[in-house]
Amino acid sequence: MLMIGSGIACLLVGVIIGCFFYHRTELPMSHVIHQQMMEQSLQRIMYDLNKENMRAHLKVYTSKQRLSGTEDVKELVRLISQQWRDNGLDKVMVTPYDVLLSFPNISNPNKVEILGTNGNIIFSAASKEKPLDESGELADIIPLYSAYAPAGIAEGDLVYVNYGRIEDFQYLKYNLSIDLTNKIIIARYGKLYRGDKVLNAQHFNCSGIILYRDPANSNLGEMEDTYPNSWWMPDTGVQRGSIGSDADFLTPLYPAKDYAHRLDMNEVVNIKIPCQPISYGDALHFLRELGGVDAPEDWQGKLPIRYKIGPGFSNKSIKVRLTVNNYLKVETVENVIGIISGNVEPDRYVLLGNHHDAWAFGAIDPLSGTAALTEITRVIGKMKQEGIRPRRTIIFCTWGGEEFGLLGSTEWVEEYMKVLYERAVAYINVDYAVDYIDTLVAGTSPLLHDPLYQAAKMVPNPDPTSSYKTLYDVWNKVNPGNGTGEPSVYYSLGSGSDMATFYQRAGVPSIDMWYTFDHKRWDLLSFPLYHSAYETFHMYETFIDPSFNYTLGMARLWGVMSWKIADETVFSFDVRRYAKAISDFLESLKTKYGTEWKKHNINIAALESASMNLTTAAQKFHEHVQTIDRENSLAVRMANDKMIQLERAFIDPEGLPERPFYKHVIFAPSKFDSYKDNTFPGIVDTMYEIQYNSASIWDQLKQQVYVSTYTIQSAANTLDPVGFQ
Amino acid sequence: MLMIGSGIACLLVGVIIGCFFYHRTELPMSHVIHQQMMEQSLQRIMYDLNKENMRAHLKVYTSKQRLSGTEDVKELVRLISQQWRDNGLDKVMVTPYDVLLSFPNISNPNKVEILGTNGNIIFSAASKEKPLDESGELADIIPLYSAYAPAGIAEGDLVYVNYGRIEDFQYLKYNLSIDLTNKIIIARYGKLYRGDKVLNAQHFNCSGIILYRDPANSNLGEMEDTYPNSWWMPDTGVQRGSIGSDADFLTPLYPAKDYAHRLDMNEVVNIKIPCQPISYGDALHFLRELGGVDAPEDWQGKLPIRYKIGPGFSNKSIKVRLTVNNYLKVETVENVIGIISGNVEPDRYVLLGNHHDAWAFGAIDPLSGTAALTEITRVIGKMKQEGIRPRRTIIFCTWGGEEFGLLGSTEWVEEYMKVLYERAVAYINVDYAVDYIDTLVAGTSPLLHDPLYQAAKMVPNPDPTSSYKTLYDVWNKVNPGNGTGEPSVYYSLGSGSDMATFYQRAGVPSIDMWYTFDHKRWDLLSFPLYHSAYETFHMYETFIDPSFNYTLGMARLWGVMSWKIADETVFSFDVRRYAKAISDFLESLKTKYGTEWKKHNINIAALESASMNLTTAAQKFHEHVQTIDRENSLAVRMANDKMIQLERAFIDPEGLPERPFYKHVIFAPSKFDSYKDNTFPGIVDTMYEIQYNSASIWDQLKQQVYVSTYTIQSAANTLDPVGFQ
Repeated sequence: MLMIGSGIACLLVGVIIGCFFYHRTELPMSHVIHQQMMEQSLQRIMYDLNKENMRAHLKVYTSKQRLSGTEDVKELVRLISQQWRDNGLDKVMVTPYDVLLSFPNISNPNKVEILGTNGNIIFSAASKEKPLDESGELADIIPLYSAYAPAGIAEGDLVYVNYGRIEDFQYLKYNLSIDLTNKIIIARYGKLYRGDKVLNAQHFNCSGIILYRDPANSNLGEMEDTYPNSWWMPDTGVQRGSIGSDADFLTPLYPAKDYAHRLDMNEVVNIKIPCQPISYGDALHFLRELGGVDAPEDWQGKLPIRYKIGPGFSNKSIKVRLTVNNYLKVETVENVIGIISGNVEPDRYVLLGNHHDAWAFGAIDPLSGTAALTEITRVIGKMKQEGIRPRRTIIFCTWGGEEFGLLGSTEWVEEYMKVLYERAVAYINVDYAVDYIDTLVAGTSPLLHDPLYQAAKMVPNPDPTSSYKTLYDVWNKVNPGNGTGEPSVYYSLGSGSDMATFYQRAGVPSIDMWYTFDHKRWDLLSFPLYHSAYETFHMYETFIDPSFNYTLGMARLWGVMSWKIADETVFSFDVRRYAKAISDFLESLKTKYGTEWKKHNINIAALESASMNLTTAAQKFHEHVQTIDRENSLAVRMANDKMIQLERAFIDPEGLPERPFYKHVIFAPSKFDSYKDNTFPGIVDTMYEIQYNSASIWDQLKQQVYVSTYTIQSAANTLDPVGFQ
Repeated sequence: MLMIGSGIACLLVGVIIGCFFYHRTELPMSHVIHQQMMEQSLQRIMYDLNKENMRAHLKVYTSKQRLSGTEDVKELVRLISQQWRDNGLDKVMVTPYDVLLSFPNISNPNKVEILGTNGNIIFSAASKEKPLDESGELADIIPLYSAYAPAGIAEGDLVYVNYGRIEDFQYLKYNLSIDLTNKIIIARYGKLYRGDKVLNAQHFNCSGIILYRDPANSNLGEMEDTYPNSWWMPDTGVQRGSIGSDADFLTPLYPAKDYAHRLDMNEVVNIKIPCQPISYGDALHFLRELGGVDAPEDWQGKLPIRYKIGPGFSNKSIKVRLTVNNYLKVETVENVIGIISGNVEPDRYVLLGNHHDAWAFGAIDPLSGTAALTEITRVIGKMKQEGIRPRRTIIFCTWGGEEFGLLGSTEWVEEYMKVLYERAVAYINVDYAVDYIDTLVAGTSPLLHDPLYQAAKMVPNPDPTSSYKTLYDVWNKVNPGNGTGEPSVYYSLGSGSDMATFYQRAGVPSIDMWYTFDHKRWDLLSFPLYHSAYETFHMYETFIDPSFNYTLGMARLWGVMSWKIADETVFSFDVRRYAKAISDFLESLKTKYGTEWKKHNINIAALESASMNLTTAAQKFHEHVQTIDRENSLAVRMANDKMIQLERAFIDPEGLPERPFYKHVIFAPSKFDSYKDNTFPGIVDTMYEIQYNSASIWDQLKQQVYVSTYTIQSAANTLDPVGFQ
């Protein structure tokens, strides 16, 4: 009896100890286990990614021209979506949107000609690139054009305008007193977005614009040592591209679904003058005939002539004629969206994005990225089939219509704006994977700065012979930050690729990254064969990444970083990065404009004070994050929510002045150059207008300083435990 | 040894059982316990609320005029904030905003006069109400005015325009061919927001407008049986009020903080003609002199005359002169904000709101509500001091500047927009508590429909002698829904009180409610003494709620509902209510406009299809909610988030056509009457313009149908487990 009694007593004591023990240890153990499992998953992704698969994908993907709106790009979409389905994703959707595209007239190509006295054609620029390698399809290459340039004819005198920046036009008009009205302009690519060159030409009443890429900006090797013997642009190569920057023309701000109400396609495009791109070989024929004064030294290109300005040729009786026969058409662009649902927080998303449409074969841009993405779906799809899922949902996206103005991603973000705004954690864009093998370049939201570094430290240097062991190490060597001891990143994500709508409108922390050349060595806006028909698989395999080690490195970085953000308990974002970015930039603004602002009573003190509040809140929040019980999934979620809300706090539904598409108050493309990125865009663009256009818009500046102050203070509130500082 | 051995064995078995037992049962028990504790808290709130405290508060609060911008309202703010602090809230903040107010010139009051042939004054309307009860301060009553009416003089012929609706003006212009240009208009209060009457008069080129409240709309008793002998309006009483509807004139869309950039106060107010309110006793002097034809039968009021239209008096040589000396001034309005932090999810908020500024003594509007709110802070503050906190944060708000255009609440919501948009669960507004004792009236987001019913079923009928046991029962008796078997509620929350900015701009599910008269018995837009100087404590205690039982009932309903939403595990919102509201309203739109829409190719099918998707998603979500493990706090949070995101999904950052302040696509005030509420406002307002103004804006209608379709489909996505249907 006693024995039974003490047995029962022992049992009871045991129960109590058990309760206590279980309660105290079960959950902490689960966190440790989860961390270990996550590390295993990351290694799994790293080593399962197979570069030969990527090579094979790239070969197939680049076997035809993948221009939006064509049957060949639809075929690619069917292929990719089938591959992703085969790879075992939970759900693969093809999401079509009918949007406004622009095409050249194949039977009546555009012409850029020199006309003699009686209208005879003295010279005519090529309407297609000349085939230079064994890619048979180059014979069927789509004629050259600038998408969204309207049909029309311009005839008259030519003027050379350097890069076509506002200051270039102003130099012609004010320093050289050249009447630009009805002149045809020839501008070299570089420095700013090509569409902004056209808008500038329009603004100065020019009648047409010819674009070319000077060898000074595309061939830094010997003149004869060009593609197909190197990666440098030959004199027959042409950069294609769109000139219709925010190209959601028919359904601005809303998704182009079948039920959409569309604007009139004949009234929406803001490009009003004909425009056509030509090769530098052909441009030479025009430039060498120019009369007028010599162009300034920094306007001189690398063609074997002394560049002159015009207007007109030295032989006044010969003229230029620009004939554009492009047409607009509503066509379907399609995205492929693949989903792996998270097993703990399915309503939180990490997105990987790339586009698949190209101007021609697109071996670098974009299909090197697409090949990597499909290979990532294979590895993660296989893990899922083995029961390994991330905590949060991973969404793979390959976009259509990017080249025409980010159309596929913009329409998709517009369609799913509400859920993305509420739930997306990060969007990681790889427009293309590799254009050269020197270093990583990355633009990032300050929030994703640390996750990017962490992933880069995990990935081996793609060059196994290097003494730099990781991708991070070589990045930090070739592309170091300015005195930070860390690799360089830039924060202001422009509108150059599909992260734009995610970041600028939905406030989703984003990254855009690729492997590239050392820009200190070669001062080029893009790789030499960019957007030309010579961007072939042969070119990629011969001159860019023969081993596919760098393509693999990018896939590893992309996959590892995405899985980590999707699977880690508390996000490894450091909110202090954001506070510091803002405070640093304010300091530089003050240095630049402080005196003038004082004169005009600009309330910079309030802006600084809000920035200090954010710094304090960020530090406090950072300390709080260290103390979170990782077992308390609700506490984890609450802390994580505050981090993603920090980015959302910078989104102003009212948008920037005259630009409702751009709602991020801290970072946005410049209003005057879609490739250039501004911090505090509302303030900086206004100052640009005040300084360059002598606009007296100090009230607008005051409003922008006010809105910025308010926004930063709001951001500080989002980090507060309750939210009302 | 054996004994020790078996003891250890028992102990180990016990540990294992303990682990198992603890894991299986600890959490379910906690949920049950939490439910029981919550029920106890609700009963505690119910029975601790003390009506005599409310009586005492009301007496003090109404002891002076509480006009915004005056020292007396600042004194009230100091008092309330001190009371709330004394009541033990975690944090009490006074949040000041400098906004544009409008005041009468006290030394040179506004005048409404009849002039004789040689300019002699035949009659002059009173510039203040005559004191009728023992409230001594009535002698110092602030002169009558319409806030934001500009200073100016109008002189000329009078025209009677009934309620001043668009159709009333159109009747004069088109049916009676009266030239309204430069006429002074006299309009009776009622049917639509007074500011919209003024805008209509402006639109028809009138030179000034006189407002009065006809006895037909304010005295349904015997003519002599009026205040101070009853609650009916006497012939000396005047309804004051603002005519500047969206009155955030200086800092639209952003908070009026000290660092704000303000617009020029001389350029922002959209009211351009003088306006002044008078009593019906004084109005009689003007109306009985009118010449012209008889007014139609439904234009006849209850004054002892035959109402005529004019223009002008039957004696053509006498005229009307309207002199307004109001001035604009930037003044501080202050809110009192009190916070009790939640103990599980401090980053989720339930807000209780009421305003404290009044046109005069404000015994009903708003201070009956303020008295109730302060008493609620006492009870909940005491619970907190005893360690009883709700799961989520409760925020008590009493707003300043409401009467001038919801200024205090609008600026506060603007300041904290980011956190409110992300985190607020519900905003429950009681502008005032009681204006009569027949029944509850409530407007609600469909999401809060069920919580409102649940709370009303818990609160005893304020009339203890009634056979209807609960507030719900008597509400269902006096004010039943149309064939639903449930009490009537309305869904479309207008801009009549402080829920407007919460609901229309931040998408926070909101309620507006008060105890009132049976509107079937008395067809009045508001209680008779509304906005007059006779709204005194004496009046409230004598004619409205002598026992304070009804004030108590409202405090109970408000407190219990708020605590329940703040403390319940899974919200008791029923998303199917929203889906049904939308589908019902679509049906009625189709009945009304179907034929015409077909003719104009309006894509109503897509809208209906989106609505069906929402219905399906809501049903699925509702079933999912039943299966949620109440112990899994993360799963609970995820489900709750989807419910509050449903309301957010209806917020379009781009706003309604020409109205960036109104962003709720499903419910908004009518563009043509701020008191009237529209479902699908973008569609209905456009149809109104097409029908009444013969506007040919079918493209705008198509756009609004498109935006509505997209928005409803988005809402369906927010209820999906992942979010991409």
